[in-house]
Amino acid sequence: MASREFDRGRRVVARLPHGADLLEAIAALADQHGVLVGEVRAIGALQRARLAFYDQHTRAYGEWSLDQPLELVGLLGNVSRRDGATAVHAHATLADHDGVCFGGHVAGGCTVFACELFLQELVGGDPLERAYDDETGLPLWGNV
Amino acid sequence: MASREFDRGRRVVARLPHGADLLEAIAALADQHGVLVGEVRAIGALQRARLAFYDQHTRAYGEWSLDQPLELVGLLGNVSRRDGATAVHAHATLADHDGVCFGGHVAGGCTVFACELFLQELVGGDPLERAYDDETGLPLWGNV
Amino acid sequence: MASREFDRGRRVVARLPHGADLLEAIAALADQHGVLVGEVRAIGALQRARLAFYDQHTRAYGEWSLDQPLELVGLLGNVSRRDGATAVHAHATLADHDGVCFGGHVAGGCTVFACELFLQELVGGDPLERAYDDETGLPLWGNV
Repeated sequence: MASREFDRGRRVVARLPHGADLLEAIAALADQHGVLVGEVRAIGALQRARLAFYDQHTRAYGEWSLDQPLELVGLLGNVSRRDGATAVHAHATLADHDGVCFGGHVAGGCTVFACELFLQELVGGDPLERAYDDETGLPLWGNV
Repeated sequence: MASREFDRGRRVVARLPHGADLLEAIAALADQHGVLVGEVRAIGALQRARLAFYDQHTRAYGEWSLDQPLELVGLLGNVSRRDGATAVHAHATLADHDGVCFGGHVAGGCTVFACELFLQELVGGDPLERAYDDETGLPLWGNV
Repeated sequence: MASREFDRGRRVVARLPHGADLLEAIAALADQHGVLVGEVRAIGALQRARLAFYDQHTRAYGEWSLDQPLELVGLLGNVSRRDGATAVHAHATLADHDGVCFGGHVAGGCTVFACELFLQELVGGDPLERAYDDETGLPLWGNV
C-alpha cells in the first residue's frame, strides 16, 4: 500500500481572521510558518459556504453555495505541494440553526466567522507532492 | 494571522464513563491529567444530546435537545482556559438509526453511552486563554 | 476515569488503494507498519458505503448500504487489539452530490474511490485490548 512514515514537526494553533476565505487562510497559515506538509483540523463558524462534490463518472467537481451562517462542525484536511505551491485539501461538515448537516469538499468561497485551527507539520523525506492520478482523475499524492 | 507554535505534551486516551455528561467528562479528564491546553477527538454513542447554534446576528446560542440514542459520529474540540478554569470547546456530528446527521456546538446535556477519546496536550508559552471578542461576541483565544 | 497516557510512536501517511474495502485497508495498513495501537483520521471519497447504528436497547448493530458515490467528508477512528488481532473502530460522515450527510459506524462494504489517511501510533504500556463490556454490550477497551 502507498504509505510512508513521517516525523512530526511543529504544532501550530491558529485563530483564523474574521472575514477571511477559509482555504486561503489555511494556505496563508502554512506559508507563514513554512509548513510544506501537514495535517489540519478545525472547528468554528462560517458566514457563508461553498462546497463541492466530485462526480466519479464525469470526473469533475460540482460546486454549490450555502448563503447563510453555519456552524463549522468539523474540518479535516491536509497541506501538501502541487506544482511548487501550497495545496490545501479539506473536507467540512457544516450545520444550520436546526442542526441539519451539509458536507463536502471545501471550495473557495467559505467565509470565516470564527475558526480555531490545529496544524501538525510532518517532516522527513521529500514533501508530499500532488500529481494527476489516471485511475480517479484527481490530483493525488504521487510520492507517498 | 493570530497563530502560535506549541510543543506537544502528553497523549491521553480515555474511555468516558457510561452515563456521564460529555462536556463535564472531557473537562474532568483534562483536570485529572493536569492538561491546561490540548486538542480533543472522540467517537462513540450518546443516550441523548443537546447541541447549539450560534446566531451570528443576535450573538446568542440557541440550544436544542435530541432525546434519543445517537451515534457520536465524530467530536472535534479543544481545551483551553477561561477565567482561571478549564474551558472545553467541542463540536459534534451525530447520527440516528437511519444515518441522518445532526451537528453543532456541544452543550451541556449530552449523555455518554460509550466514548473513546484522544486528548493531545500542548505546552510551551502561556496557556491559551479565552477572552471576549468584540467582532464576534464569542469567547475566543486572546493570546494565540 | 478510565484513562492512560501514551507515548507517540510513528506517524504514517497513506493513500488507500482504489477499490479496496475501507476497514480492511486500514487494518492492512496498521499491520504493514506493525502498529498495534493508534488513532486514524481520513478524508476522501467512496464508491459505495455500508454504515451501522448500534441499538442501545437491543444491543445489536443495524447496518444499511448506500449504493452510490459519496464524499468521505471525514473519518475518525482508532486501531487497537481484540482477541489477538488488529481491531479497527471507525466512524464516518459521508455526503452525496447535494451535500446531504449520512453518518455512522463504518461497517465492512465501504469501497474506496480515493482516501488520504493519517495514522498516529501510540506506544508505551500494554496495547489497548477490547473486551466485552457488560454495561453497553460493546467490545470496549478493558485496559485503558
